[in-house]
Amino acid sequence: VTARPLAEFAALVGGDVSGDGSIPISGVAPLETAGPGELSFFANRKYRADFEASRASAVIVGTDERVASGRTVLRSTNPYLAFATISAHFNPPAPVVPGISPQAVIDASARVDPSAQVGPLVSIGPGAVVGARSVLHPGVRLGPGVTVGADCLLHANVVVRERCALGDRVVLQPGVIIGGDGFGFATDLVGVGQGPRHVKVPQVGRVVVEDDVEIGANSCVDRATLGVTRIGRGSKIDNLVQIGHNVEVGRLCIIAGQAGISGSVRLGMGVVVWGQAAVVGHAEIGDLANIAGQSGVTHDLAPGARVAGLPAVAEGDWARSMAALGRLNDMRHQLMELKRQVAQLERQRGEGTT
Amino acid sequence: VTARPLAEFAALVGGDVSGDGSIPISGVAPLETAGPGELSFFANRKYRADFEASRASAVIVGTDERVASGRTVLRSTNPYLAFATISAHFNPPAPVVPGISPQAVIDASARVDPSAQVGPLVSIGPGAVVGARSVLHPGVRLGPGVTVGADCLLHANVVVRERCALGDRVVLQPGVIIGGDGFGFATDLVGVGQGPRHVKVPQVGRVVVEDDVEIGANSCVDRATLGVTRIGRGSKIDNLVQIGHNVEVGRLCIIAGQAGISGSVRLGMGVVVWGQAAVVGHAEIGDLANIAGQSGVTHDLAPGARVAGLPAVAEGDWARSMAALGRLNDMRHQLMELKRQVAQLERQRGEGTT
Amino acid sequence: VTARPLAEFAALVGGDVSGDGSIPISGVAPLETAGPGELSFFANRKYRADFEASRASAVIVGTDERVASGRTVLRSTNPYLAFATISAHFNPPAPVVPGISPQAVIDASARVDPSAQVGPLVSIGPGAVVGARSVLHPGVRLGPGVTVGADCLLHANVVVRERCALGDRVVLQPGVIIGGDGFGFATDLVGVGQGPRHVKVPQVGRVVVEDDVEIGANSCVDRATLGVTRIGRGSKIDNLVQIGHNVEVGRLCIIAGQAGISGSVRLGMGVVVWGQAAVVGHAEIGDLANIAGQSGVTHDLAPGARVAGLPAVAEGDWARSMAALGRLNDMRHQLMELKRQVAQLERQRGEGTT
Repeated sequence: VTARPLAEFAALVGGDVSGDGSIPISGVAPLETAGPGELSFFANRKYRADFEASRASAVIVGTDERVASGRTVLRSTNPYLAFATISAHFNPPAPVVPGISPQAVIDASARVDPSAQVGPLVSIGPGAVVGARSVLHPGVRLGPGVTVGADCLLHANVVVRERCALGDRVVLQPGVIIGGDGFGFATDLVGVGQGPRHVKVPQVGRVVVEDDVEIGANSCVDRATLGVTRIGRGSKIDNLVQIGHNVEVGRLCIIAGQAGISGSVRLGMGVVVWGQAAVVGHAEIGDLANIAGQSGVTHDLAPGARVAGLPAVAEGDWARSMAALGRLNDMRHQLMELKRQVAQLERQRGEGTT
Repeated sequence: VTARPLAEFAALVGGDVSGDGSIPISGVAPLETAGPGELSFFANRKYRADFEASRASAVIVGTDERVASGRTVLRSTNPYLAFATISAHFNPPAPVVPGISPQAVIDASARVDPSAQVGPLVSIGPGAVVGARSVLHPGVRLGPGVTVGADCLLHANVVVRERCALGDRVVLQPGVIIGGDGFGFATDLVGVGQGPRHVKVPQVGRVVVEDDVEIGANSCVDRATLGVTRIGRGSKIDNLVQIGHNVEVGRLCIIAGQAGISGSVRLGMGVVVWGQAAVVGHAEIGDLANIAGQSGVTHDLAPGARVAGLPAVAEGDWARSMAALGRLNDMRHQLMELKRQVAQLERQRGEGTT
Repeated sequence: VTARPLAEFAALVGGDVSGDGSIPISGVAPLETAGPGELSFFANRKYRADFEASRASAVIVGTDERVASGRTVLRSTNPYLAFATISAHFNPPAPVVPGISPQAVIDASARVDPSAQVGPLVSIGPGAVVGARSVLHPGVRLGPGVTVGADCLLHANVVVRERCALGDRVVLQPGVIIGGDGFGFATDLVGVGQGPRHVKVPQVGRVVVEDDVEIGANSCVDRATLGVTRIGRGSKIDNLVQIGHNVEVGRLCIIAGQAGISGSVRLGMGVVVWGQAAVVGHAEIGDLANIAGQSGVTHDLAPGARVAGLPAVAEGDWARSMAALGRLNDMRHQLMELKRQVAQLERQRGEGTT
């Protein structure tokens, strides 16, 4: 990639240069390691010292960021987006190398677009379809009847079980499992001559992953009992996340690492679930709700709700409760002192009235 | 599958038809999408509107469910079990196709039953044994000396490490890891000339998964340090669950998604561990104990105990504590008001007695 | 392995025999199953009955452990380390069998040391390097430019993505993912004609796993956005752990199962993170800090800090708060009683002054 002047990148992202816009930029780098010719990024105030010490030729900052004189910056109303856009310019995705590895095992009834790339030791089952320019890395497993759209990227050892469907531009990080059985068992206390047993409820639905979804390493999306588990268009899911059967994740949701969405939950549009949070089965979560890390949502949430805690309550209430918790021992001592005082008053009263 | 009259299914599950038992039933479907000829299922009151609007020919309900006149239902004392049974009739497991894929890699000393199905790109180590009618999907790895019983189903990319054993009818969803090393390190503060180090304790035991166990996608069961980690007969484990070394899971336990059972824990029979809960190492959990989602069990539990919270306490206590937490700021204000009142009373008392 | 007298093992670990040091020892076994000729281990008082009933010829115990007369013990100041050392004597790692399976798929530009062992169905990308005596089990995937040091052990279905590097003696349990993309998306509320979207920030850094690190089954370490995600020398990570992009784990850390370390966190040396705990993004955690299970760290921690709770506070404070929580209803009743008393005092006062 050849160098281009900073001003061109500012134009690309709709930002403004403060300083010399003609500086040639040939790459992006972190504040600590960036050198001449490199553009860096500063948004988290925690790293101000790194920003001030950085040898980067220019730094992307917010429109109102305080900047020492002599420092060239690219100011943007959305600096993270500006950084993403410019970094993508310097770091385009690996080019697709069309063709099927001779060491892939592809059922005769499967259809793989000639522009797709299928790596070694991939297996593709009967009737599966792989769209244009999609890339399947080594060890990917597509079950019977799976459909993969165009421009998808399936990293190594991804598994997509039978009849599940991926839209276009879907990215699955290594080890993702799409379409494992949902966790559904009916307990039969009587059994059939051998005591109680848990009887499997057939999980014969499927998973639909819509366009522009990305799912992180080793995350799991279970197939529906009947019908469809759906991950809505443009949603992004982090690593080690569990999505239960029959869940409907709306469009543009963000689900952070190790979160768990129980069966039959419906997330509206743009819902944000932070790390290790959980939503109980069958809950309906309104658009743009925000669920704090490690919290446990046990009921429906209204659109725009912001919750935290175990069980989850309004975010501010949880913060106040936790702060109050820290004063609880103080309160207990105050209470004891008051009891003593009141007892004395009562005693005095008694004496006074005799 | 051909259609059969509703009454036959009622007989199959020991239920009663309310309405026309001669209606032909040719499949099962969710309330929202079911149409003529289809049987649906209604148990969660949250979906009453869907039930009432459903175009299903008949619906499985509980014995005391309120039903509009004209709606044909199959009443059952255990509607979920009835649904499981009837759905299994219409959705039998995929037939086993005996044979070994030419692209599987099987050690000469392994024994695979001729009725078993071994997919492409499976690897089976020396001395391993695969029983009758068991199915190994692509990418399954069996280490040396592994034994797989009859009628097992190992989905894609399952790993069973050396010497571990699966009983009959065991189902492992994709990506399950059986027999990874337990997490055991002894800290050596002195070291051997290079400062402190964590010294690995050899993890040379194994895992035994008994009959009728199912384990969810990407869950992990660690091998014992010495001896055996055991998953008891008929237990069902969800996705992304961690089972530590030397754990003994009793019969018929249910462990939901992302729960973690630390090393050397013993779960009794029929224990239920809800999602994201954890049990501390070496705890003994009595039969039929119930551990709420996201709770943390830090000590032994008596049979039948129901616990919740961090650390886990009796379920009702946790609920009351959390409810009280919500009133904590109120309490603090009441306390301040009382202090003011008492101070005034004391002042008045002082004045009154002068 | 031939038997050797107990006294030799005592010398090996710097311990003392109490009893007959000439007893021949031919193996190690758990207290419950050990028999003649076997050495066992007792440290957790919970198992005293097992210790007393054990048929082991000798048992490793702490220096001050109470022991019945007639029981032969090997006393050690660090009994767990002594056990690790002696067990390793009897249970050496499986020997490396040099050579590359004909069913492995290795790019012509990769370099595999002749002393390394590469199993069937392994894939190794262009330019990758595998060091001396390293073992790659079936289904391992090394991306382009990956480097694996000497004496590493990569279990089945491990994935190491492009350009990531492993030091020497690194152990990766089955299903570990090294170098998945970090979770970085910039939200573009305007979009490009199709409404809002989450725009991927290219994750083009890499992961460096230093010498003597072990990582548990199905754990994930994300590559850096730019730069390096680093796991420091000698650290040990359990199963199903999430390590976000740009994290720096210091030397000799311990991270237990299902813990989550968010992006850009720095853990100092010897930090211990217990199971299911989480650390919020960008936090700096001082050397030797100890983070309790299931707790949530939301800010920096000083060296040696011990924290617990949601959000995490000083360990003792959390314990006191939780204990106080259990008395909260009592407090509420006391408060109500006080209010009644004070109201009465005020009424009496009013009467008294009229």
